[in-house]
Amino acid sequence: MEGAHHVNVRIDDLPVRDELRGKSPYGAPQLDVPVRLNTNENPYPLPEPLVERIAERVREAARDLNRYPDRDAVELRTELARYLTRTAGHEVALANVWAANGSNEVIQQLLQTFGGPGRTAIGFEPSYSMHGLIARGTGTGWISGPRHDDFTIDVAAATEAIAEHRPDVVFITTPNNPTGNAVSAETVLALYDAAQAAKPSMVVIDEAYVEFSHGDSLLPLIEGRPNLVVSRTMSKAFGAAGLRLGYLAADPAVVDAVQLVRLPYHLSAVTQATALAALEHTDTLLGYVEQLKAERDRLVTELRALGYEVTDSDANFVQFGRFDGEGAAHAVWQRILDRGVLVRDNGVPGWLRVSAGTPAENDAFLDAVRELKKEQSA
Amino acid sequence: MEGAHHVNVRIDDLPVRDELRGKSPYGAPQLDVPVRLNTNENPYPLPEPLVERIAERVREAARDLNRYPDRDAVELRTELARYLTRTAGHEVALANVWAANGSNEVIQQLLQTFGGPGRTAIGFEPSYSMHGLIARGTGTGWISGPRHDDFTIDVAAATEAIAEHRPDVVFITTPNNPTGNAVSAETVLALYDAAQAAKPSMVVIDEAYVEFSHGDSLLPLIEGRPNLVVSRTMSKAFGAAGLRLGYLAADPAVVDAVQLVRLPYHLSAVTQATALAALEHTDTLLGYVEQLKAERDRLVTELRALGYEVTDSDANFVQFGRFDGEGAAHAVWQRILDRGVLVRDNGVPGWLRVSAGTPAENDAFLDAVRELKKEQSA
Repeated sequence: MEGAHHVNVRIDDLPVRDELRGKSPYGAPQLDVPVRLNTNENPYPLPEPLVERIAERVREAARDLNRYPDRDAVELRTELARYLTRTAGHEVALANVWAANGSNEVIQQLLQTFGGPGRTAIGFEPSYSMHGLIARGTGTGWISGPRHDDFTIDVAAATEAIAEHRPDVVFITTPNNPTGNAVSAETVLALYDAAQAAKPSMVVIDEAYVEFSHGDSLLPLIEGRPNLVVSRTMSKAFGAAGLRLGYLAADPAVVDAVQLVRLPYHLSAVTQATALAALEHTDTLLGYVEQLKAERDRLVTELRALGYEVTDSDANFVQFGRFDGEGAAHAVWQRILDRGVLVRDNGVPGWLRVSAGTPAENDAFLDAVRELKKEQSA
Repeated sequence: MEGAHHVNVRIDDLPVRDELRGKSPYGAPQLDVPVRLNTNENPYPLPEPLVERIAERVREAARDLNRYPDRDAVELRTELARYLTRTAGHEVALANVWAANGSNEVIQQLLQTFGGPGRTAIGFEPSYSMHGLIARGTGTGWISGPRHDDFTIDVAAATEAIAEHRPDVVFITTPNNPTGNAVSAETVLALYDAAQAAKPSMVVIDEAYVEFSHGDSLLPLIEGRPNLVVSRTMSKAFGAAGLRLGYLAADPAVVDAVQLVRLPYHLSAVTQATALAALEHTDTLLGYVEQLKAERDRLVTELRALGYEVTDSDANFVQFGRFDGEGAAHAVWQRILDRGVLVRDNGVPGWLRVSAGTPAENDAFLDAVRELKKEQSA
C-alpha cells in the first residue's frame, strides 16, 4: 500500500447511501463581512453578569465532569417549563418538556419516533428547510405542501394535500422561516383536524421565533391534543445560538416516546449548566427581544417606504422583494454584500431575507438598499 | 375538551413506529449509592487548574454565544488530531478528524451515512449495546455476530457471518465493552478484508477505551484504507463523561461524507471550549489513566485470587464471573449493591462488570465480593 495515502478519495468512492451521492452539506455561507444579517442570530451579546453566571455554573459542573450528566435533564426541563408557563399562557410541567442539542435534534428525535422508513412528513414550503433535510436523514419520505402566493398557508390546498398523502408528521412553522409571517390558531386547528382525519399523525408546530411575534404562542393548543407538539429554541430570543438548546412541549406521553430514540446522555453537563444560567436572566433577554421587535417593525416600514414588497413579519427577520427575473434576487444579494452587508438568499424566487440586527446594523443595511434603489432610478 | 388533560395518554396511544412499541429507554439504573462502579466513568474529578481553565474558556465563548458556533469545529478538530498524532503513532490532520456530541452521535452519523433503511450492520456480541440500538434508531438492520466462549472474536465464524449477510457496516469494539478484552490488528484486518470481499462496506473500530489498553491503538490501520474508521471519546481517558465529546479519525472523504447528515451547528460553543481546555491538560489526565490501569490490573489479580473467573482486560473495567444458573449473576449484583457498591449487570449470562474506581472504591468492592465468597464457603 506504499503511497496509498496520496490517492485522493472522494465521497462517491465510499459506500455512502445512494440518496447522499452528489449532495452538499447544509449551511449558510460563512463570510467575514462587517454586518452579518444572514442567519437570524440575536445581535446582542449576552450581558456581562450573565456571562459571569455561565462561567460560575460551568465551573461547578466541571467539578463533576468525570460523571455522566443528568440523563433526564430534570432541573433544566423544570426551568424551561416554568418559563413556558410564565410566557405562553398555559401551565406546563417537567413531564411536558423535553430538551436536546438545538431544535434540530428535537425534530430529529420526533422524526425517528413518529416518522422514519416507510413513513412520510409534510411541510408547507417555502419553510424551514431543515425539516425536509432531517426527514431525509431519518429515512422519512418528504412531501412539499403548498402555500398561497403571499406565503400564507392555503388551508383548502393544505388539507387536500394531507388527505391525499396521509402523512405521519405535519410541520407548521409559525412564525414561518424564511417568510416571517405567523400562522393563526384556526389554521393550525384545521390542519390538525385534517391530519387526524387522514390517520393518527403528529403535528409539530415549530415556534423557534415565537417570542418575536405580535401574537401569542400556540402552546395552549397542546391541551387535550396528545398528537400536537410545540418545538422551541434558546437560539433566538435567548440570544444563545452558540448554546444549541432546543426543547419541546407536549403531552407527557410524547416526552416518554422520544426517550426511546434519544441517545443516552445526549445533553452535556456544560450545556445544561449554561442554559440554566441563561434562564435565570430571562427578563433581561426578553428586554432585548422588545428592542428587536421594534427594529424589525422599522425594517418593514422603511423597506416598504423604499418601494419594496415586504412579507408581514412576526419574526426577527424580514423577507423583502420582489426581484423579478432569473437570478435577480441573487444579483441583489451580491450587490448588498458588496456594501459589506450579508443577507440571506434562501432560494425563494424573487425574495431575500434580512435578520433584524442592532440599530446601526439595520441602518447599514437600509443604506445599502437605498443606494440600490437610487442606482435603479438613475 | 373539558377535563381532557386528565386522561392519561400512554406511548402506545401515540402513532409511534411499530418497532418502538413496548420498548423502554436505554440506560443504566441511576441509584444513589456510596460507590458507583457501573458506568465506566473515570473516578478522578478534573484537577482544579483544569476546572478554572474550563470556566475561563467558556466565559470567553459565552461572550459570543449569540452567534452560531464554528460549524466545522476547526480548532477543536485540529487539537484532537494533534492528540492522536502524539499518542497513536500515526500522523493525522484536521481533515481526518470529525467530532460530535459523544461517540454515540458519531456512530449515529456513520450509520445515517453508510447504513440506514435497506442496509445492515453487524457487531460481535456481547459488545457495546448502543451499536445495535443506534442501528435500530437509524433504520439499519442489525446482525448479531458471534464470539468464542472466552469472548474473543471467532475469526472463522465472524468472516462466515460477514460473507453470508454482506453487511454495510461492521463494528469492532476494542477493547471490547462489556467484556474488556482487546482485538488484535490481525483480527481486524481479517474482518476488514472479509467485509470488502463481500461488498464495499465500512468497518468502524470503536476505541472508546483504548487509552487503558496494554497495547497500541489501531489508528495506523486507516492508512490506505478509506473504508476504515476509528471512533474515540473524551468520556473515559479524559475524565469527561459529562462533556459528551466523541470523535473519529478516518480518510478525509469519510469526514466529508458525515457532514452530509450532521445537523448543522451540532456542537455547541461551550462544548468546543470545554473540550479544548481539557486537551490543554492531556498530560495530567493521562497520568490518571496510568493509575487506573494499575488499579484495573489489581482488580483482575485480586478477583482471580478470590477464585473468580476474570476476562483479560485492556479497559478501565473488569468482567468477572462466573455465576451459574438462571438469574445468578443478577442475584450477586444485588448482594454487592446491598453492601453499597453498584456494579453493572449487562445481561451477559453468568457475568458482571465492575469499573476501576479509586483505590478506596476498589477496596470497598473487593471487600464486598470477599464477604460473598466467605458466606458461600461458610
